[in-house]
Amino acid sequence: MTSRPSVMSQEIAEQPAAIHATLEELLPRSAEIAALARTTRQVLFIARGSSDNAAVYGGYLVQAHAARLATLASPSVATSYGARLDLSGVLAVALSQSGRTEEIVATMRWAAECGARTIGITNEADSPVARLADLALVTRAGDEVAVPATKTYTTQLAALAVLALALGAPLDAGELREVPAAIERLLARPEDRLDAIVERLVGVHGAVVSGRGLAFSTALEAALKLKEACYLHAMGLSYADLLHGPIAVVDAATPALLVAADSGPTLSGTVALAERVAAAGAPVYGIGGGAALAGACDLAVPGPDLPEWLAPLGLIVPAQQLTERLARGLGHDPDRPRGLGKVTQTS
Amino acid sequence: MTSRPSVMSQEIAEQPAAIHATLEELLPRSAEIAALARTTRQVLFIARGSSDNAAVYGGYLVQAHAARLATLASPSVATSYGARLDLSGVLAVALSQSGRTEEIVATMRWAAECGARTIGITNEADSPVARLADLALVTRAGDEVAVPATKTYTTQLAALAVLALALGAPLDAGELREVPAAIERLLARPEDRLDAIVERLVGVHGAVVSGRGLAFSTALEAALKLKEACYLHAMGLSYADLLHGPIAVVDAATPALLVAADSGPTLSGTVALAERVAAAGAPVYGIGGGAALAGACDLAVPGPDLPEWLAPLGLIVPAQQLTERLARGLGHDPDRPRGLGKVTQTS
Repeated sequence: MTSRPSVMSQEIAEQPAAIHATLEELLPRSAEIAALARTTRQVLFIARGSSDNAAVYGGYLVQAHAARLATLASPSVATSYGARLDLSGVLAVALSQSGRTEEIVATMRWAAECGARTIGITNEADSPVARLADLALVTRAGDEVAVPATKTYTTQLAALAVLALALGAPLDAGELREVPAAIERLLARPEDRLDAIVERLVGVHGAVVSGRGLAFSTALEAALKLKEACYLHAMGLSYADLLHGPIAVVDAATPALLVAADSGPTLSGTVALAERVAAAGAPVYGIGGGAALAGACDLAVPGPDLPEWLAPLGLIVPAQQLTERLARGLGHDPDRPRGLGKVTQTS
Repeated sequence: MTSRPSVMSQEIAEQPAAIHATLEELLPRSAEIAALARTTRQVLFIARGSSDNAAVYGGYLVQAHAARLATLASPSVATSYGARLDLSGVLAVALSQSGRTEEIVATMRWAAECGARTIGITNEADSPVARLADLALVTRAGDEVAVPATKTYTTQLAALAVLALALGAPLDAGELREVPAAIERLLARPEDRLDAIVERLVGVHGAVVSGRGLAFSTALEAALKLKEACYLHAMGLSYADLLHGPIAVVDAATPALLVAADSGPTLSGTVALAERVAAAGAPVYGIGGGAALAGACDLAVPGPDLPEWLAPLGLIVPAQQLTERLARGLGHDPDRPRGLGKVTQTS
């Protein structure tokens, strides 16, 4: 492993400050969000890439805790098929770090034309997503230079936690304010357990990454990081989807990386999955899930000291660190993966 | 490759008859579907595994052509979090080949308790999904013995095409009736082009499988088949998601398999993706997409002679054949992948 610190590692370390600044910015906007949402009954997320993984967190959070249907839009319904739907009563929430991915801008505009109210969550105040939305929630991640999104991702999760609170989720905003400190503690930990997992992943071609419920978002985002920076064939799958077929893919050469909060209704299923994967002869590595998951894994790193609804803001951090270290261990520059630019244009 | 015909290959060949029987059963039910849907404004699909991939087809079809919002449910919102949502105005469509996957049964029951009207699409008339739904649409695939779903999958797609017509999609039911004959013609083709792709995939660890819009469902299902029967690290990704990060994963050892209808608004993007993947140094194989896609691929097999809205019913067939042949080529029994049973129970 080279010793030059990457920009990605610096941006990983900036997350507590970025989340703190984002919460300072957005928590006072709760009444505006609630007012906009008053005439809506459900949420439709519009996103791609890392933002899409953030939207998965938002979807589970809003449904599990804010008692509203919340699902993901298929942008090509708007951009390729030009469908005209009745979206009255829909709160469309577009997520784009740059705020200028054309497909997301076009789909948000389409949603408004179809009758939806719109919220834009972006890191760029002066972007089309911010300007065109009924309400712009601007994250305060600062400039992000490395191509793999880190602090722009976790600040999106923070914005989605604010959204859920504003939609009436009976959760404690005080717990949300504790997130930066919890991530600081994660970052201050000795990294030997992380390095032990990195060592085992060098030379591996493929891996399965799984989690359930709120932590499914973390599994998808961890798989995306490993694909984009380490070129690993990382398959992000939900607990249930993994058992519906792809369980066949795990073997001694194809480890599973499992993610879970330290508590909550999906922990026991994740522990059972770890046991099943191990019984299939595959190495199992864990992030979070407390002693129960660690005990079922070959190697594990502790997750954040956060309640389940906020755990995804911290659980992704060890996965980011693991990605950055594995990329360097493989001789890749984590800041500039092949084939990728910072703003992805799809239309 | 061994010469013993697998049960999977027999079941692949039974698809024209299975789809024909399913359409005979379900097309006459259109008025009932329309009556049930009258008080609803949107569709929510409840499914896992291959059925989830069928639901992706249903979602694009209903949104692009029947002018209704149609998205996918997250079953753990019901089964793990016990959320209570207002689903009045929602037509919940549960898909389960066996009709007895507990998670799907529980989520369908939950949707009804939350105010949704329910349709159950299943291959088993005497199953909980059929019994508990407001309206049961029973596919006529007959017994399916091989673990990888083939004819139960394409008959689900046929049922979803009937659903879209019943919801008012201005499409031609006559074209739907032509599907069995179009698949017969596909199956009667010489298999040398397919074998040429299989030969190139032996020894490959990972592959990216992509498609856009309606054909995205085919990409997901093809990736699932390759994972479950060939243990290949097959990553099913939409066109746009592939460009948002995972494009980094393709290289000389990681081919892309691209799927498209011979016409429609997503074809040109798929051809452009083939060119981009080839420029990244990766082998590109195509299914369908006419001369345009074939010209951009290293090897390609023609797709079915069907309009875009029905193309997924035929496009999956060469992918099924490819999976069955590759599994045998690798020395696996395609009928009995490791770690899998025919009815998957998740809860």
